[in-house]
Amino acid sequence: MKSVITLTTDFGLTDPYVAAMKGVIISICPFAYIIDITHDVPKFDVRGGAYLLYTATRYFPPGCIHVAIVDPGVGTPRRAIAIKTRKSIYVGPDNGVLSIATQHEGVEKVVEITERKYMMASISSTFHGRDIFAPVAAYLATGTPVEALGVEVNDYVKIAPSNVKVEEGMIKGEVWWIDGFGNIVTNIDNWLADKLKLGDTITVRVNTKQYKALFASTYGNAAPGTLLLIPGSGGLLEIAVNLGNAAKLLNAKVGDTVEIKR
Amino acid sequence: MKSVITLTTDFGLTDPYVAAMKGVIISICPFAYIIDITHDVPKFDVRGGAYLLYTATRYFPPGCIHVAIVDPGVGTPRRAIAIKTRKSIYVGPDNGVLSIATQHEGVEKVVEITERKYMMASISSTFHGRDIFAPVAAYLATGTPVEALGVEVNDYVKIAPSNVKVEEGMIKGEVWWIDGFGNIVTNIDNWLADKLKLGDTITVRVNTKQYKALFASTYGNAAPGTLLLIPGSGGLLEIAVNLGNAAKLLNAKVGDTVEIKR
Amino acid sequence: MKSVITLTTDFGLTDPYVAAMKGVIISICPFAYIIDITHDVPKFDVRGGAYLLYTATRYFPPGCIHVAIVDPGVGTPRRAIAIKTRKSIYVGPDNGVLSIATQHEGVEKVVEITERKYMMASISSTFHGRDIFAPVAAYLATGTPVEALGVEVNDYVKIAPSNVKVEEGMIKGEVWWIDGFGNIVTNIDNWLADKLKLGDTITVRVNTKQYKALFASTYGNAAPGTLLLIPGSGGLLEIAVNLGNAAKLLNAKVGDTVEIKR
Repeated sequence: MKSVITLTTDFGLTDPYVAAMKGVIISICPFAYIIDITHDVPKFDVRGGAYLLYTATRYFPPGCIHVAIVDPGVGTPRRAIAIKTRKSIYVGPDNGVLSIATQHEGVEKVVEITERKYMMASISSTFHGRDIFAPVAAYLATGTPVEALGVEVNDYVKIAPSNVKVEEGMIKGEVWWIDGFGNIVTNIDNWLADKLKLGDTITVRVNTKQYKALFASTYGNAAPGTLLLIPGSGGLLEIAVNLGNAAKLLNAKVGDTVEIKR
Repeated sequence: MKSVITLTTDFGLTDPYVAAMKGVIISICPFAYIIDITHDVPKFDVRGGAYLLYTATRYFPPGCIHVAIVDPGVGTPRRAIAIKTRKSIYVGPDNGVLSIATQHEGVEKVVEITERKYMMASISSTFHGRDIFAPVAAYLATGTPVEALGVEVNDYVKIAPSNVKVEEGMIKGEVWWIDGFGNIVTNIDNWLADKLKLGDTITVRVNTKQYKALFASTYGNAAPGTLLLIPGSGGLLEIAVNLGNAAKLLNAKVGDTVEIKR
Repeated sequence: MKSVITLTTDFGLTDPYVAAMKGVIISICPFAYIIDITHDVPKFDVRGGAYLLYTATRYFPPGCIHVAIVDPGVGTPRRAIAIKTRKSIYVGPDNGVLSIATQHEGVEKVVEITERKYMMASISSTFHGRDIFAPVAAYLATGTPVEALGVEVNDYVKIAPSNVKVEEGMIKGEVWWIDGFGNIVTNIDNWLADKLKLGDTITVRVNTKQYKALFASTYGNAAPGTLLLIPGSGGLLEIAVNLGNAAKLLNAKVGDTVEIKR
């Protein structure tokens, strides 16, 4: 069987880091089918990485090996872990970056990666992506069981649950991600807005400023420049502007508070 | 046979959108050979996307499936289409993004994509790349015939033909693309300049400003900084600067008028 | 056997150039396993490209074909070469971009590429990546021997050796690369600092300015914002800031002089 390995990092594609990981992987597992999820996680943004990983891996078939590295603590005592879910195996630092995707798939087993024979012979202190996570993923792709990587552990670092409150006629949450179109992705599930009707004009507050927005199913349903609240394709409410950039218009950034009022 | 699927979008590589499409594709067709053409089409720039798609797919072998998504009208009644040419199959929104590449290859059949069984079970209003175009491409890659996707249609949206005029001693056109080196790619075919001789000094007007340029076969044929007119590798005349950035120097942007005079 | 072809260029991923190369490659060798090293070499920066190529290809298995194109002299009489090393085959312009990686692997044979039957039928003056280097790499991947590409030559362009001086208590070198984290990669081998002990406070001069820095094994070993000197994962000393951007802080750029004093 052809083994799929996906990569999610904050390394960017300019430097040789991602390519070095790919070289290590195909040295061990020549037929690995490597797919980049993204290498543009904002540097050190564990929460952003967790979002991107989860949003993409949902659409992958069972049996994939997902490597995610946003790792400001590389070389310190933070653990390296592999998490076996009902669907996939995830590999990365134990700092929360794996937690959202794995919880959605259903965690079956967490192993602390300690077995040296699945790592590079020489391990740097600053590039565990190349020296630990890439070879571990490649060995998993060749059929090495998760259990062989080290001892099972009972805990692992979870991202703090996102802070969403629903009150009468009001939902409070925050900005989780701003995409390349300037769409503001909130941490509020689409279904929490199930009392809104398409075509309603609602009130959106981002930080201290308040705006009127149209509740719509898609961008092109309104005149260019119209501010919209949209049930997003990733399952989360989005604030958008048809043919425009909502994040710039509203001066929004990740972590800003969002309130939606009927 | 291994099936090649290429992807051209304005999604960028930071967000999880392209990866979600790849996950959908390999879920349906595990052996698809996916090649990214570009995901950096300027947002909503259908004409730019059509240029990039055409310029790249010319060099692909017959039998590929080319997906192109620059889709400001996603979720509105604009159609989803598949175009079978003499060489390939193209899939995307019916807004012109497919029209230049397919016309060059020779259009054999256009089908409006309506058959739900080749789409995701749940279809969002904002991400047809993942929910319609990716699964359709994957089913085509597994051997599904174009005809199975829906009903044949006779018309499809074409990009307006580019406005090129040839007069005595003068060619008028416009800027179609500015590449990462700052080379200004015009919409003027190289062969229209067949009366110019390499080494000629000619006059180039971009918008209202006029410059002297050397007609040369390549960048390194002149001193650094020299303004050049070059028969481009994509078949179109380019304005370039050896070791410099012509677009910055001439303050040129896509759509600007270009005149070339002997 | 599946043949791996890697690509390193300064073409960027926005334009259709890299995709056109991939189309040419799979037209000749449909099963080529193409891996991008980077396409973001700074434009025309042969020395930067040589660094990135070397740093990545070290981690690839034997038998790969590595194509590297940073080619300000395209279309001029600069030669196209293929270099067979003890481990791999490298293909690119003869301007030094291949020299560091190949010297590290051990050069066995250098061939000037002249045989037209391994090139595109029509060869542009400005895009040898597509018209010469891509098809040559694809033919090599199908088993064509290096010797068939042209005549063996005895010389090839080498990057000037980097200027590193070791004096009593002092090492002098320069900035070779600045990575996406702002880490300043010097041209000074880690082992030249073997008299330093982890935890030492040392003095770093970049150009005319002097700083105190901690000699540490990894970023997270010090408080955020601390300036660090680190034995880098690529074998070269790096100046870094924990959770910060050393290059911005020190206003450093490629080529700046670096002095390290105990």
